[in-house]
Amino acid sequence: MKLRIFVTLKPGVLDPQGRAIHHALGSLGFAGVDDVRAGKLIEMQVADDTDDAAIDAMCRQLLANTVIENYRVERA
Amino acid sequence: MKLRIFVTLKPGVLDPQGRAIHHALGSLGFAGVDDVRAGKLIEMQVADDTDDAAIDAMCRQLLANTVIENYRVERA
Repeated sequence: MKLRIFVTLKPGVLDPQGRAIHHALGSLGFAGVDDVRAGKLIEMQVADDTDDAAIDAMCRQLLANTVIENYRVERA
Repeated sequence: MKLRIFVTLKPGVLDPQGRAIHHALGSLGFAGVDDVRAGKLIEMQVADDTDDAAIDAMCRQLLANTVIENYRVERA
């Protein structure tokens, strides 16, 4: 089973990487960009019998820092 | 208009971050993980009249290194 896990900063958490991208896009002449947030995408191939609880535990224990980040799991 | 841009390493490109995650999941006792690839997710708020060519240019010039990375744009 293929998993795609999206890890994004919670709203309100400062995102220096996103700001740097925003600034760089402006410098390159791209207008109309309002806001940029940078996150992570983790693609995983796991055994088909991996249950939701295990996937959730992976996210909470390793992949996301739930103090400042949200995560979303998509099965492909 | 909200954009979500997924930047992933091309197949065959070495992914040390993915390997580190894979190894760490094993150390934490999660079995059945076969492969892990780490990528980037960039969420952007852009003007509604931003055309595809501009979005493509942003990706090619700044967001992705097309030598080693693929990108995919999703409009939300």
